[in-house]
Amino acid sequence: MKAEVVSIGSELSSGVRLDTNGQWLAAQLAQIGVDVIYHSTVADDLPANLDVFRHAQSRADLVLVTGGLGPTKDDLTREVLAEVAGVPLEFHEPSLQWIESIFKMFNRPMPERNRVQAMFPVGSEVITNPNGTAPGIWLMAGNACFVCLPGVPREMKPMFTDWVVPRLRQEFSLGEVIVHRTIRCFGAGESQIEEMLGDLTKRGRQPEVGITASEATISLRVTAKGANPEQAQQLIEPDARFIYEKLGELIFGEDDVELHHAVAKALIKKNVTISTAESCTGGMLGQMLTDTPGISQVYLGGYVTYSNDLKINLLGVPADILSRHGAVSEECAAAMAKNCRERTGSDLAVSITGIAGPDGGTPEKPVGLVYVGLASSSEVKVRNFKWGNDRKSTRVRAAKMALNLVRLQLLRQDC
Amino acid sequence: MKAEVVSIGSELSSGVRLDTNGQWLAAQLAQIGVDVIYHSTVADDLPANLDVFRHAQSRADLVLVTGGLGPTKDDLTREVLAEVAGVPLEFHEPSLQWIESIFKMFNRPMPERNRVQAMFPVGSEVITNPNGTAPGIWLMAGNACFVCLPGVPREMKPMFTDWVVPRLRQEFSLGEVIVHRTIRCFGAGESQIEEMLGDLTKRGRQPEVGITASEATISLRVTAKGANPEQAQQLIEPDARFIYEKLGELIFGEDDVELHHAVAKALIKKNVTISTAESCTGGMLGQMLTDTPGISQVYLGGYVTYSNDLKINLLGVPADILSRHGAVSEECAAAMAKNCRERTGSDLAVSITGIAGPDGGTPEKPVGLVYVGLASSSEVKVRNFKWGNDRKSTRVRAAKMALNLVRLQLLRQDC
Repeated sequence: MKAEVVSIGSELSSGVRLDTNGQWLAAQLAQIGVDVIYHSTVADDLPANLDVFRHAQSRADLVLVTGGLGPTKDDLTREVLAEVAGVPLEFHEPSLQWIESIFKMFNRPMPERNRVQAMFPVGSEVITNPNGTAPGIWLMAGNACFVCLPGVPREMKPMFTDWVVPRLRQEFSLGEVIVHRTIRCFGAGESQIEEMLGDLTKRGRQPEVGITASEATISLRVTAKGANPEQAQQLIEPDARFIYEKLGELIFGEDDVELHHAVAKALIKKNVTISTAESCTGGMLGQMLTDTPGISQVYLGGYVTYSNDLKINLLGVPADILSRHGAVSEECAAAMAKNCRERTGSDLAVSITGIAGPDGGTPEKPVGLVYVGLASSSEVKVRNFKWGNDRKSTRVRAAKMALNLVRLQLLRQDC
Repeated sequence: MKAEVVSIGSELSSGVRLDTNGQWLAAQLAQIGVDVIYHSTVADDLPANLDVFRHAQSRADLVLVTGGLGPTKDDLTREVLAEVAGVPLEFHEPSLQWIESIFKMFNRPMPERNRVQAMFPVGSEVITNPNGTAPGIWLMAGNACFVCLPGVPREMKPMFTDWVVPRLRQEFSLGEVIVHRTIRCFGAGESQIEEMLGDLTKRGRQPEVGITASEATISLRVTAKGANPEQAQQLIEPDARFIYEKLGELIFGEDDVELHHAVAKALIKKNVTISTAESCTGGMLGQMLTDTPGISQVYLGGYVTYSNDLKINLLGVPADILSRHGAVSEECAAAMAKNCRERTGSDLAVSITGIAGPDGGTPEKPVGLVYVGLASSSEVKVRNFKWGNDRKSTRVRAAKMALNLVRLQLLRQDC
């Protein structure tokens, strides 16, 4: 089954707004075995809309349209679809009642022009819209099945998932479903992980295993096709098991879990309190930890010691360490973590000091050099890393390295 | 002049990747007076590509294609364009030399398959690609002018701006140019600002003035058309002046300047040192300030006092204030700012304490309530705000409110 996605609106064709519906629909359709071959976007212009609808009708079995169902003169989808199907528009009383009820809910009179949203090409089925005034339309026109949905994603998405998908499954014999499972890792480079997995990420293999990196977080996406989701899931299982075997502690979560959420949840679950002492990240680590609701149970707070003076005066780093080893040194990171833990009374304390750039680098201590420290009841560990020259990237990666030290510590139960 | 933008690639049509080239090109073309009526996206499939190119040729004067210029079998643009233009492909020696020189730069031999990137439909002009191996193509085919560029945005954008735009201007008499100017404000709501500006944001007015809000930052976008950029700029001028007169201190910058960058730059320029004491934002304010390179000159650091214990023990907030007024109170915000300034020795200190949610709210102190304090040599100011229930949004807005207090203080030169 060949599908085309059509997005309607001059705000899209003129580039004022980015269309994300097309991508979302194509990805959803792929999961139920429908291949999208074409996307079209068209301005709010009658002849241009007719051209796009007619051409889609001639080359696709399924045409998924978003937009153009509003109450204004710009909204042409109803009219264009009727013309292409060669039928008149007719009035649908239940839809008018629905539209009126929505205005009633907001205590506003329904403007006369909204009546047009209850007009449908003869032969249509009405797709109810629980979140707005624009109902959708399902209509066979020639050999193509047209499905028209509103352009507002909040309205369009549930209509597609709850009404259109079951209906497509019922009406057509669809291809194989596609299922993804993403395993997320931190602590080794992309090529290192690829090597650990042998032939797993080879092109053309089934299931397909893709590897991507984003600020040192490595994602392995396993994709399988099957007659149904359960079967596809089963095909993924042996590969997932192999990845867990090979990567072990490098793995911190699945699908859309971020490292800072995984760490925050582990801290809360184990009830281990933590504090932070940050230099070059300026508070980013604390901010990431406090992104997770409920973190106040275990995150106490800490210090941002951006200047050397504050490292000495607030955090008690010996002036001697700064003058002999510098602020970006193993000794300074260790003192920051150790003193932070003592002063806050937390179970763990983590420190970051580095050169984010663009200035401040030297041949011995280049831009991108970061030391990360972790103090527990038994010891103080320090790790160092050298990233690239990008300030934002170095800061994000430094915060992630610190989070990862905490994650590994919690795995070892040694706090 | 009617234009169509065509994006090529199965990763786009299948929804694996979001196409942003189409929007970017449409917005750029609008600025030089070219209306984009259609966008098409098509999979890496020969008949489908031929269909899209032929249909674009029939309905558009200018067809801007991105993608399909790589060295692999999937890359069909050269072949399809030749077929649609009814001409054979021919070899272009200078392009081969360019491709070879790029491989030489990376000390790698050129794979044989890259030779195909030096093939062009007869009659083409070659668009050089300073950032990659895929040259672009300019070719009249029938009544349509085809411009083919690589899909990688980093390569495509400079080719479009530096080669295609001047060439389009030279070849065609284009419509009026469109120029935007965005004035950015903080400290009043969208509707309040709209009211202050009277009829300025009315629909249909020329120049058009659009108003948008993003996490309490309000942007006013003035758009004008003119025969050339200078003329359009001049049309914008009186409106911009009016906006500055009416909004005064609410304005912090123009175009893509963020509030935290504006504040960081003002601190550096005036050489005013600052420290931070954060509770519910957990370090976000420090992180935002330290996003700007060179901030180490004025940002000293400070405290993240997420728990009440640390507010007392690290920052010296009297336990009495916490028991009588609570951590989310004017008194606590004032003590945090005052003590932070004293302990760090900064010129200014700014504090944040609030209830980010989703839990922790009470009828008197609901989720979304935030107090922001500012201590200077002469006084301590506190402001409070009640945002909605969204944790992320409350935290970002709280940090922005604190930054804005600093901005206004700097305007008054009273540090």
